[in-house]
Amino acid sequence: SSVHENGSTRNHHSEGAIINLDHGDPTIYESYWKKLGEMSRVTFLGHQSLSYFSNKKNFCWFLEPKLEEEIKNIHNMVGNAIVEDRHIVVGTGSSQLIQAALYALSDHSLNEPNTISVVSASPYYSAYQEIADLLRSGLFKWAGDARSFDKDGPYIEMVTSPNNPDGIIRQGLVNRPNGVLIHDLAYYWPQYTAITSPADHDIMLFTLSKSTGHAGSRIGWALVRDKDVAKKMVKFMEINSIGVSKEAQIRAATILEIICGSCSQSVKPNIDLDNFFEYNKNLMAERWKRLRDVVKKNDIFYVTKYPIQYCNFTGDFTEAYPAFAWMKCKLEGVDCEKLFKEHKILTRSGRRFGCDPEYVRISMLSGDDDFDLFIQRLSTIIGSQSLNDN
Amino acid sequence: SSVHENGSTRNHHSEGAIINLDHGDPTIYESYWKKLGEMSRVTFLGHQSLSYFSNKKNFCWFLEPKLEEEIKNIHNMVGNAIVEDRHIVVGTGSSQLIQAALYALSDHSLNEPNTISVVSASPYYSAYQEIADLLRSGLFKWAGDARSFDKDGPYIEMVTSPNNPDGIIRQGLVNRPNGVLIHDLAYYWPQYTAITSPADHDIMLFTLSKSTGHAGSRIGWALVRDKDVAKKMVKFMEINSIGVSKEAQIRAATILEIICGSCSQSVKPNIDLDNFFEYNKNLMAERWKRLRDVVKKNDIFYVTKYPIQYCNFTGDFTEAYPAFAWMKCKLEGVDCEKLFKEHKILTRSGRRFGCDPEYVRISMLSGDDDFDLFIQRLSTIIGSQSLNDN
Repeated sequence: SSVHENGSTRNHHSEGAIINLDHGDPTIYESYWKKLGEMSRVTFLGHQSLSYFSNKKNFCWFLEPKLEEEIKNIHNMVGNAIVEDRHIVVGTGSSQLIQAALYALSDHSLNEPNTISVVSASPYYSAYQEIADLLRSGLFKWAGDARSFDKDGPYIEMVTSPNNPDGIIRQGLVNRPNGVLIHDLAYYWPQYTAITSPADHDIMLFTLSKSTGHAGSRIGWALVRDKDVAKKMVKFMEINSIGVSKEAQIRAATILEIICGSCSQSVKPNIDLDNFFEYNKNLMAERWKRLRDVVKKNDIFYVTKYPIQYCNFTGDFTEAYPAFAWMKCKLEGVDCEKLFKEHKILTRSGRRFGCDPEYVRISMLSGDDDFDLFIQRLSTIIGSQSLNDN
Repeated sequence: SSVHENGSTRNHHSEGAIINLDHGDPTIYESYWKKLGEMSRVTFLGHQSLSYFSNKKNFCWFLEPKLEEEIKNIHNMVGNAIVEDRHIVVGTGSSQLIQAALYALSDHSLNEPNTISVVSASPYYSAYQEIADLLRSGLFKWAGDARSFDKDGPYIEMVTSPNNPDGIIRQGLVNRPNGVLIHDLAYYWPQYTAITSPADHDIMLFTLSKSTGHAGSRIGWALVRDKDVAKKMVKFMEINSIGVSKEAQIRAATILEIICGSCSQSVKPNIDLDNFFEYNKNLMAERWKRLRDVVKKNDIFYVTKYPIQYCNFTGDFTEAYPAFAWMKCKLEGVDCEKLFKEHKILTRSGRRFGCDPEYVRISMLSGDDDFDLFIQRLSTIIGSQSLNDN
């Protein structure tokens, strides 16, 4: 499905406007950043960042030193990942880093076809299959649901935790010899879930889009234990795009620095700077409450429930407030994406995640107007005509 | 060869420093942009460009409207490419667009293996082979020198004009049925060569790196005649990196706008704003004169000669001043890359371009200090000891 079709018209909320909750476009973060105003300014002069190189002494020669520093700072402060003795590779979003990791982990010997299987447990992030199969690579190939994977030999398992689409905390599932895991931790941040311990895996992927809301910057990063794997990822990045935009990296570094500052009470006590994670967690919690209230009332959907856990970052027990709602229609045989579409709400069908069409994934990260309209329309689905039509 | 190794130390020119002229790192442009100072400032506030989307109404939904406009303006002003009725696709540098074009032009039917051959006439840009073979795609495959290509069936020919490495103006060479051409016009700008007519091909690639000097931004663009091909390129971009950094695009738009302004005498007549192309063409002409003077004196290298042509943009007859010097050692059997390395000059061997090791490609776009040191060291190669060693 194409990203650009049927886009919602954000500034034009007539009754008939379609709202697009198919993508996780993180415009919910606009309110936090608007409050900051001038504090968040980043500027570039014409002669800056001309060179391909950011740091000739680093194996990842296109990584801006300031971004490297701020990535380490934020993980150390949040406590969501180990950064000591890890190699940092920056990418044009984490999408590009997924490919870089698949490239780095596959067998490049020329003797025989050694295509490595790529699996993930359903429901899995719909992009994994698209990415793995995009160029019909002879190095790696999508092999579907990890739950039914029974081939011998090496494999790569994508482990998304909290999971996209359903917000569940996950671990590797296949657990066979010759397996390597890529941990996609895009949503392992305090606004979405409890930070229970610093993640400590071989390859961990993060993205600015879902941590700070800057999807337009296309900045992702990988924390990689093995130097040779990291070097191969850099090699992929060299050939795929000769590195990553310096402007985006430098802005990302500033954004991460501001967030770190907002979380340390000693910094700038005279400025009204809300703690980034608390502020946005509150927004998420409020949205989830509104969603659960409506879902309870209209009584025809299941929404995933999450356990209460202790968060080391906030020092409190908390529910999870995932970036997506993973909803299932209680009535069998209903095509849930179609049902929502009839109510002018674009969602992503469970089919795209290796599941049944009774499921849909709905973004919880839209702008306020779209979210209000979503809740309003959802509330009208109680015993509605459209349901009987299915 | 890896981009990050043996980087030159730009701010530390001891006698022993290695100078890296392997890459075409365009830091020559620094002097122009430094003169501009504040005029070239671009700023971002924290809440800007959060969304994945730039323009939901455009098929290329991640293309910033302002960049689209400035791309059209600069081509119309320079007269180097037709933009009317073309579809513009933006990429993370033109490297990513080469892959997008290969993807778009290949056969996606699942029935049989239909791997399309990718060729280019030697000497060809060394990255084409690396890009085509990176993931061992089942869609396309590098098939080597276009001069010896004799397979039946569809093929893609990369036509680089002016050519990288040798600066020669080129056309398609294979001229068989079922061929499609990708024109890489990275160097078809007035500082390098005469603009003899607006290029008018099916797929034309350009890059900010070699037009304005902003290699760090990673911005390239394609002008595409066929809408379906352009749509497939966008599809590739969606999956490969979910679009292109907005910061880089917005800065690129400003940079192109400034260049356009600098070329129109009516704009800002009170500001000392040099015509971008004249200013940098003068720098290139001066460097080429210095290079040819030394090469003439030491009499052991050939350097490509270029015809005098009329440039529609400048309204003058001019030589070409390519971004790279393509040099050949007059003595047979000399490994020219090795020879230069002995003199602490990193170049790229002719082998990488499908040629003999007597050839090297040398960047003419380095910073001033590196270029001075290059000329100084080159002048010492006359009948030197190192030559006898080969």
